[in-house]
Amino acid sequence: MKRPIGVFDSGVGGLTVVKELMRLLPNENIIYFGDTARVPYGIKSKETIVKFSLENILFLLKQEVKTIVIACNTSSSTALPLLKRHFKIPIIGVIGPGVKEAIYATRNKRIGVIATKATINSHAYERQIKRLNPKIKVFNQACPLLVPLAEEGWARRKETRDIANFYLKPMKKSGIDTLILGCTHYPLLKEVLRRVLGNSVRLIDSARQVAYETKEILASEGLLNNKKKQGKYIFYVSDELQQFKKLAKNFLGKDIENLKKVNNV
Amino acid sequence: MKRPIGVFDSGVGGLTVVKELMRLLPNENIIYFGDTARVPYGIKSKETIVKFSLENILFLLKQEVKTIVIACNTSSSTALPLLKRHFKIPIIGVIGPGVKEAIYATRNKRIGVIATKATINSHAYERQIKRLNPKIKVFNQACPLLVPLAEEGWARRKETRDIANFYLKPMKKSGIDTLILGCTHYPLLKEVLRRVLGNSVRLIDSARQVAYETKEILASEGLLNNKKKQGKYIFYVSDELQQFKKLAKNFLGKDIENLKKVNNV
Repeated sequence: MKRPIGVFDSGVGGLTVVKELMRLLPNENIIYFGDTARVPYGIKSKETIVKFSLENILFLLKQEVKTIVIACNTSSSTALPLLKRHFKIPIIGVIGPGVKEAIYATRNKRIGVIATKATINSHAYERQIKRLNPKIKVFNQACPLLVPLAEEGWARRKETRDIANFYLKPMKKSGIDTLILGCTHYPLLKEVLRRVLGNSVRLIDSARQVAYETKEILASEGLLNNKKKQGKYIFYVSDELQQFKKLAKNFLGKDIENLKKVNNV
Repeated sequence: MKRPIGVFDSGVGGLTVVKELMRLLPNENIIYFGDTARVPYGIKSKETIVKFSLENILFLLKQEVKTIVIACNTSSSTALPLLKRHFKIPIIGVIGPGVKEAIYATRNKRIGVIATKATINSHAYERQIKRLNPKIKVFNQACPLLVPLAEEGWARRKETRDIANFYLKPMKKSGIDTLILGCTHYPLLKEVLRRVLGNSVRLIDSARQVAYETKEILASEGLLNNKKKQGKYIFYVSDELQQFKKLAKNFLGKDIENLKKVNNV
């Protein structure tokens, strides 16, 4: 089916998921929406995150998407259960895939989760891990300053290492062997996180697993695009284009084309 | 006149202005709106900031305010000139008052301005300083990480000092004797800024001057409230109440009462 896959995020972070979708499903058309006028979501309340997510979904539905990927941990953890009840088309979040990969990776059954305040407060990761394996111990840490540090391009600065160290110290003590990067911005900080935690801790970035799950769901619903043509990509944002373009390269690994502003949110 | 003074900000920072208004004009009724669902403004584009500011003004006009104070540097620097053209009631921003106080304070005619990206990019401070005194040298620095650090309550942490030091190093070298705190969050970081810059640099926080200017304008337009009763205060936010309540105490210096959520933005 030619209809596009719809992806949304509060901003630019969800492009890490788009990158993996492009790689795994090169024939699929993708429409991305980044809500850059109202970013960030992670410091806001459940009610507001649900409202914004709902509006984003309605926008993507107008673009005739065949499935929706919520490439935002905050929205996936806070709004997805509610949204799934209301809509017929498949909606895929980033929590489940991340959880599966982390459970597969851990040896000592001690998993850490770092994320925004809203994601940590939702307990979504903890609940899903416990449901699949109640014996696993989960250690949570909200890291609200990591998003602005990543957006500022401060990934390699000493101050970022100090702040990451402050956030991760309790986790390091608790002896985790696996850490879920519960925010799509955090893959940009992999290097500093590795430096703080050491090589023995496996870092789980759910983007690839989300792409696999999307492929599986499209296949099982008979929605895959069987055309052999290269997929087309359109990117929409709610704020202006330049800042997004600049940041996008870091996340997508290449320049962004076909970028448009929408005023509907 | 009994009608209230309307004040808005992108979030909680504008309460530093409300605090001074309460002190200087104890009989005035005040209605505050904090756009906490869409905070922050400082990383967004002019077009988006103008749109949000306009919506905030329309909300306050519905509350029958007699004047509007934009207690947000980003909105004052980016949107105020345009908004002033459209509305009849007096609209007071924070840039002019801060500039006046800084020009009064400087001895060596070297003034620094720290603010959000949007405020620095607007050149509003620089332009207004030069208009009043073209001989003054202005040194600008966007400090995007200071808002999240202040909101996290990290004012006394070493990491904040390191980051402030990084931002202010060029300014220190340039020999300023006066620094405009061009964002309503920065007064919370006064102590760390003083530690980084030393006691010889005067820190200008425009809140008090904004209150004086508001009083002057109300007086000249015959809009002062002559009733001897203590003013009433209503606070509105666009996101949930608890987080705002918690932060508000830091800015207002006392507990907040009469706080309501609105869904209209």
